[in-house]
Amino acid sequence: MSAQQESPAMPDPGEIFAAFTAFHRTGALKAAVELDLFSAIAAGATTADDLARRCGAASRGIRILADFLVTAGFLTKEGTRYALTPASATFLDRSSPAYMGSAITFLTSPMMWESFANVGAAVRKGGTVASEGGVVAAENPMWVEFARSMAPPAAFAARLLANVLDAPKAPQWKVLDVAAGHGMFGITLAQENPRAQIVALDWANVLTVAEENARAGGVQDRFRTIAGNAFEVDLGSGYDLVLLPNFLHHFDVATCEAFLRRVRAALVPGGRAVTVDFVPDEGRVTPPVAASFALVMLVGTPAGDAYTFAELDRMFRTAGFATSELRELPPSFQRAVVSTKAS
Amino acid sequence: MSAQQESPAMPDPGEIFAAFTAFHRTGALKAAVELDLFSAIAAGATTADDLARRCGAASRGIRILADFLVTAGFLTKEGTRYALTPASATFLDRSSPAYMGSAITFLTSPMMWESFANVGAAVRKGGTVASEGGVVAAENPMWVEFARSMAPPAAFAARLLANVLDAPKAPQWKVLDVAAGHGMFGITLAQENPRAQIVALDWANVLTVAEENARAGGVQDRFRTIAGNAFEVDLGSGYDLVLLPNFLHHFDVATCEAFLRRVRAALVPGGRAVTVDFVPDEGRVTPPVAASFALVMLVGTPAGDAYTFAELDRMFRTAGFATSELRELPPSFQRAVVSTKAS
Repeated sequence: MSAQQESPAMPDPGEIFAAFTAFHRTGALKAAVELDLFSAIAAGATTADDLARRCGAASRGIRILADFLVTAGFLTKEGTRYALTPASATFLDRSSPAYMGSAITFLTSPMMWESFANVGAAVRKGGTVASEGGVVAAENPMWVEFARSMAPPAAFAARLLANVLDAPKAPQWKVLDVAAGHGMFGITLAQENPRAQIVALDWANVLTVAEENARAGGVQDRFRTIAGNAFEVDLGSGYDLVLLPNFLHHFDVATCEAFLRRVRAALVPGGRAVTVDFVPDEGRVTPPVAASFALVMLVGTPAGDAYTFAELDRMFRTAGFATSELRELPPSFQRAVVSTKAS
Repeated sequence: MSAQQESPAMPDPGEIFAAFTAFHRTGALKAAVELDLFSAIAAGATTADDLARRCGAASRGIRILADFLVTAGFLTKEGTRYALTPASATFLDRSSPAYMGSAITFLTSPMMWESFANVGAAVRKGGTVASEGGVVAAENPMWVEFARSMAPPAAFAARLLANVLDAPKAPQWKVLDVAAGHGMFGITLAQENPRAQIVALDWANVLTVAEENARAGGVQDRFRTIAGNAFEVDLGSGYDLVLLPNFLHHFDVATCEAFLRRVRAALVPGGRAVTVDFVPDEGRVTPPVAASFALVMLVGTPAGDAYTFAELDRMFRTAGFATSELRELPPSFQRAVVSTKAS
């Protein structure tokens, strides 16, 4: 939409209207993943009627959903036949090794969907309005959903991290994976470094998923677990690496610092804590994915945030670490901060 | 995010991930409109602390929301000061004559938000899974919300329609505005043509809003109403124009055709029915806003659709109209179809 007006030129309201209805895109993609529409097209069903039979849906419903996905750029259409785009073939066909469709199940969980219907309440309060602390409540079943659905994108980021840590050439490692979830960060390091021993810490219900993934990844012999609250359990000691993937953003600075003291105590001299997180630049508005993640923490936690490198560096220094270093993980949306305990 | 891979090149998953979280944009913009954040910035509050005081919110909440809006392109940030973009100043500051922020209240009503959380169910069924026919249920209070919040964008489209119909130079008009809602289509024609008499038809609860708007628009002396179900009430007769703004898309073809027979009977010879609607091209995937609107009808109605011009033309011919003509309403997202009864 472009406005044709006398001067002064009327700005284009297109982006604003697109944002008003942006939730339609999420809803459509969620439905297509649930119905496994992309896999059905990859398997050769290309008309609305064929897809309806294969997906167990109404032909009219499929036609309208698939047309929407064409307008959104996730399918193409020639006559009455739909086809995948290169991106949907790679990331949304369940038979693709890079399949990431399951991530939408976690990202659009009922709690998330409801939270984003009422962002205003969280802005007024300055934190989540969900009961019992939102996503950081004990044994919250959403973390099982997280572990099941976010493993593929995490495995992708974990391989980038393994490169940054030069895992294949590294010596024997004892690794603690905090709030391991799917466990893919530790599991991937174990795959890349055959001398690595992994200890995965999370709620007991979540560790079931991590253990499945460790077996599937062939590293179950070097994979142990600690079940419980990361702030209360005995972390053990003698770790060369402590992984903090997507963990610190859930908590306020004082809580993070108290926890990092415990992490430091569990590390060997010269050991490293490795934060993998959404780390915005100091102005807090770039890069967009990392910067915008702060809103997810506002609506979902009492006091979490997307911390800048300066903030993380200060937390680690306060907790007694010697140095912290920011490492990029392109093309992932996340960054790593490697913090070293003095040797 | 761009993938740096060996051949074959890995496609970019950026658009897919953006769609997974696109509902965050809607939620953030909805909150900012509720808190009247844009108007507060226009009035001179530019830091998170100032905005928090003026909006009655937590400074931390405002900072995170405003940063998100910068990443989304609706604000700018210099140091700790936020500013409006040309588009947000024009369309989201409540003191701007082109303010359209209220539209998000209707577009993100609880029923809409819930419907888009479960698009899959509507695709399986081929129509809304909401009870009592979804949005077309009798006296649905959402139409009062619609009338209150969608008046500004409708007034914009109505002025474009008045141009297409050459309203200022037109003769005396008797105009029926079907499902008038806010009444802005009829009211605008009355403003542009001082010889026009308007009859607005809608549910009684909705007509209250249209009557307010007619008074505010200074045309109350030429504005009458018919309360009730458009399919059952006496429409009256002798109309030169019958307006069908955003009406036909709620119903199946047979229901539309039956209604259009009633419309034809109410028109004078040579009279015109004027459909203003989301009219996709025949391939149903362009232009994007009109084409994607079909999904709103899938989740919200039993059998509504975004009809192409060929489909509308066929409906009007079946109902006895002589000719139909497609008229563009740039820069609006909508199109007009002007259908003439033989004289």
